[in-house]
Amino acid sequence: MHSKSSPLGEFDLIQRFFKAGADAMRSNKEKVIALGIGDDCALLMPVAGEEIAITSDMLIEGRHFLLGANPELLGHKALAVNLSDLAAMGAKPLGFTLAIALPKVDEVWLGTFAKGLFAIANQYSCPLIGGDTTAGPLTISITAFGSIPSGKAIRRSGAKVGDDIWISGTVGDARLTLAALRHEINLPEDDLKQIEHRMHNPTPRVELGIKIREIASAALDISDGLLGDLQHILKQSEVSAEVFLGQLPKSATLQKQSEDIQHQFAASGGDDYEICFTAPIEKRGAIDEISAALNLPLTRIGSITEKVGVIEKLSLLNKNGDLLDDVKTAALLKSFDHFAK
Amino acid sequence: MHSKSSPLGEFDLIQRFFKAGADAMRSNKEKVIALGIGDDCALLMPVAGEEIAITSDMLIEGRHFLLGANPELLGHKALAVNLSDLAAMGAKPLGFTLAIALPKVDEVWLGTFAKGLFAIANQYSCPLIGGDTTAGPLTISITAFGSIPSGKAIRRSGAKVGDDIWISGTVGDARLTLAALRHEINLPEDDLKQIEHRMHNPTPRVELGIKIREIASAALDISDGLLGDLQHILKQSEVSAEVFLGQLPKSATLQKQSEDIQHQFAASGGDDYEICFTAPIEKRGAIDEISAALNLPLTRIGSITEKVGVIEKLSLLNKNGDLLDDVKTAALLKSFDHFAK
Repeated sequence: MHSKSSPLGEFDLIQRFFKAGADAMRSNKEKVIALGIGDDCALLMPVAGEEIAITSDMLIEGRHFLLGANPELLGHKALAVNLSDLAAMGAKPLGFTLAIALPKVDEVWLGTFAKGLFAIANQYSCPLIGGDTTAGPLTISITAFGSIPSGKAIRRSGAKVGDDIWISGTVGDARLTLAALRHEINLPEDDLKQIEHRMHNPTPRVELGIKIREIASAALDISDGLLGDLQHILKQSEVSAEVFLGQLPKSATLQKQSEDIQHQFAASGGDDYEICFTAPIEKRGAIDEISAALNLPLTRIGSITEKVGVIEKLSLLNKNGDLLDDVKTAALLKSFDHFAK
Repeated sequence: MHSKSSPLGEFDLIQRFFKAGADAMRSNKEKVIALGIGDDCALLMPVAGEEIAITSDMLIEGRHFLLGANPELLGHKALAVNLSDLAAMGAKPLGFTLAIALPKVDEVWLGTFAKGLFAIANQYSCPLIGGDTTAGPLTISITAFGSIPSGKAIRRSGAKVGDDIWISGTVGDARLTLAALRHEINLPEDDLKQIEHRMHNPTPRVELGIKIREIASAALDISDGLLGDLQHILKQSEVSAEVFLGQLPKSATLQKQSEDIQHQFAASGGDDYEICFTAPIEKRGAIDEISAALNLPLTRIGSITEKVGVIEKLSLLNKNGDLLDDVKTAALLKSFDHFAK
C-alpha cells in the first residue's frame, strides 16, 4: 500500500508492531471492543449502566523522558501514566489509542517499545484499539478509556471537612532518581538501583482505585508533586487542609537524605503516580483492610478543614506540630510546571 | 497553582484558553458528558443502544502544516480531520480531547488557535472534554468520540461485488494548493484563492456520513489520496475495483491544469477529506436525493468487481475506457506515506 521508495511504510509499521499485539488482546474483550485498528475509527460497546472515563497524556522526548531513554520502559510508562489517571477515578481499563511521532523508522526501537507497551497493556487487560503513526520529533500521545458504574467515579470535588487525607505507597523517589541522573545530588549507585524503577517503571494503582470507589470522597494521582496536586482537590472541593510533613511516607533510600531534601522531594517531587485520596474518618478500618489486601501502604497524612474565608488554604505542619511559615510553605507547594523556567 | 516564576503556568493556560469554551459547550451536552476538563478523566455517559466511535490524529508542524501556519485555520483543521474520520463511520460527534505541545506560551497564538478550534467544535456540537498541555515542538493530538447506533457503523470491510463506488465533493484541490505553495507549479493568484480553503480549512462530511449510514456498504475518508485510500476498502472487503479516471470530480480550477496533473492530483493527492463509499446499484436514487438535500455533489467513479485470484486489484480506465498500463497505474496508486522519502 505504501510507496515503494520507503523500506518500511507507515501502514506496515502499524501492522507489524502494533496490530498483531492489539488483535491478540482484543479477542479477550470482544464484548466491549467492537472494532479495533484498521478502520476510520475504533468502536467501543459500552456496558449498560457504566460510564466511560477518558484521559489523555502526551510524553515528549527531552521533557518527559530523557534523550535515548530505554524504549521498553518508555512503552510501559506511556501507558502507565494514563492508567494512573483511570485509577484516580476508580475506573477499570477498557482500551487505549496511541498517536506516535517517530524521527525515523527504527525497527529495533519499535519492537522494544511495543514489548514494554503490550506487557503493561496485557497486565491491565487494556488493549490498543486505534491510533496514528507519523514522522516527527519523538512524541507519544495516548488516550485511555475506562469503565465505571454510573455516578460512582471518584471526583476531585468531593472532599468534606473532617475527612482524612491518604496517600498510597511512598513519595519522592522518582524526584530523587531525577536528581541523581541530573547530578543535583550524589547518590550511591546501590541507592539509585533501589529506587530508579519509581521514575522509569511506575506502577499505576489500578486495583486501589477500584477498591476505594465506594470509600473515597475525592482522589487524584500524583504526577506533578503531592502538595501541588492536592491543591486541585482543595480548590474543586472548596475546602482547606492540614498536612503533617513528618507523616509523608518515604522510602528507606530517601530517608538517608537530609531532612530538607526529604521534605522537598516527598512534598513536591513529580512522577510518583501514587493516589492521594480523602475519606471520612469512619472508613479508616476499611482502608487498612484494603492496604493489607493489596500489600500496599496507605498512609494518613492530614485532614480536610474549613475554607478560610474565600481561600482554600493548605497548612503544613512540621514533625513537632508547628505550622510552617509562608516562605517555607510556598517553596514546598511549588508544583512542577511544564512552562516554568 | 503554578510556579510564580512563570508568567502564565500550565494550569492557567488550560483554564484561560480552553476550559471556558469547553464548559460553555458542555452545558448543551449534559446528557452525554458527565464531567469535562478539570479532573483526572472526563466522563462520557453512553446512550443505550449506541456504540462509541473513537479516532486519533496527530498533526506536527512542518509535516502536516507549514511552519507559521495561521493558528485559527490550524485549530479548525486539527478537529476537522478527526470529525472526518467520525463521518466516515457514520458517527455523530460527541466530544474530543486535545493533547497539545507548544514551544512557548504565546497568548495571541493560543487565543487564535482556540477561536478556530471552538468555532468548528460548536458547529458540530463536539465539545472539548479533556486533554493535556505541555512544552515541546508544536504538536496537536486530538482524539474524537462519536455515537452511532449499535451495529450500524459503516466499516471498510463491507463492499460487495457489483456495488458502485462514490466520492463526495471534488478531489485534488488540496494537493494543487500544496503544489502552488511549494512552487512545484505556477498557479495564478486568483486560482489559488479559489481552492486554498480545501487545504487549510477542510469541511468534514459529518452530515453525509450520518445520512449514508443505512445506504453505504463501506466508506472511508480521503486523507492520503483517493486511490491509495480506496485500496483499504478493497483489501478489507476482499474485492477488486474498476475506477474511471475521467469521472473523478474536479474543481474548475484543477480542470485548467494539464491532464496529467489533473489525474495525478485527483487520484492520489492527499488532504481532501471527502468521503469515498460503496453502495448497491439500487441505492442510486436515494444517493442522488442525499446529494440534493445536502447540496453536495456525489459522483459515481467506478464499481466493485471480483477479486482476481488472491489479489485485490484496482484497475484504472482512461476517458476512452481503455485500461491503464501497470507503470501508469502504479504511479497513480502511490499514496502519501509519512515515512517515504
